[in-house]
Amino acid sequence: MTDPIRVAVTGAAGNIGYSLLFRIAAGECFGPDQPVILQMLEIPPAMGALEGVAMELDDCAFPLLKGLVLGDDPEVSFKDANQIFLVGSKPRGPGMERKDLIRENGPIFVGQGKAIEKVAASDVFVLTVGNPCNTNGWIAMNNAKGVPRERFTAMTRLDQNRAVAQLADKTGRDTTEVSDMIIWGNHSATQFPDSLNARIGSERVPDLIDAAWLRGEFLETIQQRGAAIIKARGQSSAASAACAAMDHVRDAWSGTGGRSVSMGVPSNGAYGVPDGIMFSFACRCSGKGAYEIVEGVEFDDFGADKFAKTLEELKSEAAVVQDLV
Amino acid sequence: MTDPIRVAVTGAAGNIGYSLLFRIAAGECFGPDQPVILQMLEIPPAMGALEGVAMELDDCAFPLLKGLVLGDDPEVSFKDANQIFLVGSKPRGPGMERKDLIRENGPIFVGQGKAIEKVAASDVFVLTVGNPCNTNGWIAMNNAKGVPRERFTAMTRLDQNRAVAQLADKTGRDTTEVSDMIIWGNHSATQFPDSLNARIGSERVPDLIDAAWLRGEFLETIQQRGAAIIKARGQSSAASAACAAMDHVRDAWSGTGGRSVSMGVPSNGAYGVPDGIMFSFACRCSGKGAYEIVEGVEFDDFGADKFAKTLEELKSEAAVVQDLV
Repeated sequence: MTDPIRVAVTGAAGNIGYSLLFRIAAGECFGPDQPVILQMLEIPPAMGALEGVAMELDDCAFPLLKGLVLGDDPEVSFKDANQIFLVGSKPRGPGMERKDLIRENGPIFVGQGKAIEKVAASDVFVLTVGNPCNTNGWIAMNNAKGVPRERFTAMTRLDQNRAVAQLADKTGRDTTEVSDMIIWGNHSATQFPDSLNARIGSERVPDLIDAAWLRGEFLETIQQRGAAIIKARGQSSAASAACAAMDHVRDAWSGTGGRSVSMGVPSNGAYGVPDGIMFSFACRCSGKGAYEIVEGVEFDDFGADKFAKTLEELKSEAAVVQDLV
Repeated sequence: MTDPIRVAVTGAAGNIGYSLLFRIAAGECFGPDQPVILQMLEIPPAMGALEGVAMELDDCAFPLLKGLVLGDDPEVSFKDANQIFLVGSKPRGPGMERKDLIRENGPIFVGQGKAIEKVAASDVFVLTVGNPCNTNGWIAMNNAKGVPRERFTAMTRLDQNRAVAQLADKTGRDTTEVSDMIIWGNHSATQFPDSLNARIGSERVPDLIDAAWLRGEFLETIQQRGAAIIKARGQSSAASAACAAMDHVRDAWSGTGGRSVSMGVPSNGAYGVPDGIMFSFACRCSGKGAYEIVEGVEFDDFGADKFAKTLEELKSEAAVVQDLV
């Protein structure tokens, strides 16, 4: 049998972690022939709950699950890790501005970046889910200069999946028919879900749906979806976030062929985004974590304006934590 | 593409439902080529939360998910259903005896049994997860006399999986090496996890582990596992219960070959269990919900005594709700 890979998950006893771990152990992310060892990180007050999660993982007798590591030290949890899901982050408290949230979370990702550089496997691939995920991932990347920066990514796949579902619902088509629905920029309210270059079957979305809806209700729905789910469920999105995280990592590991997917990745200067900024682009994955940024996508004035605004936000977020990198 | 099957889940906005639905939609239970329509039942106060779960299911853009039905009426949720997971039940309240719990839940399963008979697909297969699951399933079965009774089952797979994990852990072997670890009787504290007929590789468990541990700590660990997880996590087992439910249904639909698994099924008189009692036996599944009870397993005096006690409990549970069938 194939050697197990080591998969680290931070915030492992939280709601997204709980939705993610069992599916990874079942083989849903890395396939039915790939054994895994789960290395779970939590903060000290959550170690009891993490112990309970580990008991439940044991209780599933997953054929592919070859080991569990529990801990509150990233140098233990990230040891020899091939894949790291950075899920844990401090949530926004009452009255807290986004800037405060960024400052609160920054030091966590400094420490985690340093630990990744020090102990992770040489092929480590990192997905940052904990918000603000672009800037958190950027901080980690900049604190792990010995790791090729392309191995650090941030998650906009949940936004992409939400956008795909909205377009399918609006047109009465199947979600599998929607392609090239890319989220550009920051995973935040400034994100730019570009429906104008998206397709349903062989047709362009703007030929199927009127521009007013695409520029209005569609964008608002995607941006406010998280809040709408909290209102309905009384809890934030967990299972759908875990699903998107697996989609991102599965695509990065297995490749997407000609398909484009949204990933927050360090800019190589494409589209005028300053080198190194963790920006969500259209990407094509060739497997084992390798990908290329798709060049040549064109935007109209509306799109160019949205693109500029989300880039501006990412630059200002970086400025808030410039001292940490 | 294959026509979708209709999969009904009750208690769909609860914790087990939340762990179950996304994995079914991802193809983990019925395979990567089988589209599904999820038909979700909740009680009226939980319809808002259920709406939130449906939004998150949409937001995953699952390629296999071809429709969602939300409702609080079993005749709507079970309409043409091929597979039904009866997950929802009233939990035990403070100071409530098991007898009270059985009386509280009985009427729910009367109504659900009648609805199954009236509207479900002709090949419907039912798994009862909501506790007390053997007796709840027995009530539903007896209120659906037009449905072949073999299509009603109850879940002891979580107990089996827990037992497999304990034996693997004790011997330092892999869970995949453990076979024939059958739970007999009731999914309750009287359950009889029969380790004496279990094997690890080609070896008999009693040749590998001393009898005192198997009759003492092993049984106690399995019986008290649910409480231990509540103590650690602060919440009851959800992901591991969902995992076991999928194992049960996947095996019933796909078949187990020569492998024996634990399923609560109506007795055919095997092992002296009165006809019709919903008792967990060793079963071999031949696919599409068909199975046979494995005959000829032998117990020592200790096992025979445990077997008799769990049967006695199931008879007394049936007596408590005799008026409902």
